[in-house]
Amino acid sequence: MPVRYLEDFAIGQTYGSGALRVSKEQIRRFAAEFDPQPFHVDEAAARDTFFTGLAASGWHTAALTMRLLVDSEWKPAGGLIGAGVEELRWPKPVRPGDELRLQSEVIDARVSKSRPGHGVVKVRITTVNQNDEPVQTFIANLIVPRRPASHQRVGHAYLRHVKEQGCSQVPVGAVSP
Amino acid sequence: MPVRYLEDFAIGQTYGSGALRVSKEQIRRFAAEFDPQPFHVDEAAARDTFFTGLAASGWHTAALTMRLLVDSEWKPAGGLIGAGVEELRWPKPVRPGDELRLQSEVIDARVSKSRPGHGVVKVRITTVNQNDEPVQTFIANLIVPRRPASHQRVGHAYLRHVKEQGCSQVPVGAVSP
Repeated sequence: MPVRYLEDFAIGQTYGSGALRVSKEQIRRFAAEFDPQPFHVDEAAARDTFFTGLAASGWHTAALTMRLLVDSEWKPAGGLIGAGVEELRWPKPVRPGDELRLQSEVIDARVSKSRPGHGVVKVRITTVNQNDEPVQTFIANLIVPRRPASHQRVGHAYLRHVKEQGCSQVPVGAVSP
Repeated sequence: MPVRYLEDFAIGQTYGSGALRVSKEQIRRFAAEFDPQPFHVDEAAARDTFFTGLAASGWHTAALTMRLLVDSEWKPAGGLIGAGVEELRWPKPVRPGDELRLQSEVIDARVSKSRPGHGVVKVRITTVNQNDEPVQTFIANLIVPRRPASHQRVGHAYLRHVKEQGCSQVPVGAVSP
C-alpha cells in the first residue's frame, strides 16, 4: 500500500472503500454522547419527528466516513489531514442496519500557497448505503506533502524496491509515476 | 426554554453555550473508533507528525460542537436538524485538556423553496478553546419549521401564558415577536 505525494494525485482519479454496517446500538450510543436528540436516541419518539424513525446523527455518518477513509487503500504521505470541508450534505438519513461505503473522486490538486512544501488535494467523497443511495456528500480539502526533492526523479515502486532489496542504484531516466 | 420558529430568528442574533473539557482519553477513544491515525491515538508517534503532538480528530471536535449546540439555550422547534454545512475549518488543533465552547451568530433566515412549511436558518458557529482561539468554524444550514398558522398572529410568550394559564382568548393586534 504505497503512500502518495501531491504529485501522485490527478483530477479524475476515483477510489472505493470497504464497508461498515451501523447498528441501532451504535447509532444510539454515538447520539447519547454527542447528539442526544429524540430522533437519534429514542425509537418511539423518533416516529413523530422530521425523520419519521430512528436515524444516525449526521456527525456519526461523518465519523464513520472518516473511518472508511482511514481504512481505504489511498494513503497520502503524512496521513489524512483535512484543511477543511465544503458543501457537507446529508441527503438521506442513515438507518439502523445500513451498510455504508465510499465513492471518492479527485477534483483538484495544486501546490499550497501558504505551505510551499505541501499541496491541497480536493476530493469529492460520497457515502452511499447498501442501495447505492447517497447518505452524505462533501468535498474534502486534504493537505498532502509534495514529493521530497530526493525522490523527485524516482518512481515510488522503485524506491520500495530499493528499500526491500537494499539496492541503492537509481536507474538513469527513472521518473515519478 | 422556549422553542423557536423560523419567525423567531433574525440576522445578527448571537448565542453562547456551555463548555466541555476534552481529555486525552476521550481524544484517543474517539480516534480509535473513527480516525485511528497516529497523531490522534499515539502521543509519542504524534510528535513527529504535522500536528507535533496528540490532537483530536476534527470530526471529534465537530461532534463535541454538536453536543454543545444541543445543550445550549436556543431550541429550534422540531430540533437541531442540519440540511448541510458550509466552510468547515479547523484552524487550530484541539489538545488534551482543552475546554471548548461556542460563539454562534445568525447570518440568514428565509423560507425554504423546497419545503414551504419550513425555513432555512444559516448560523455561523465558531468553537473556541479556553484561550478564545477558534479551533473550528462552519456555517450550519438548519431546517426550522415556520410558526403554525394558528400561532401566526400571537407572540410566543403569550402562547406560553395561554398554555400555562388555560386562557384561550387572543388579544386583538397581537403579533409574532
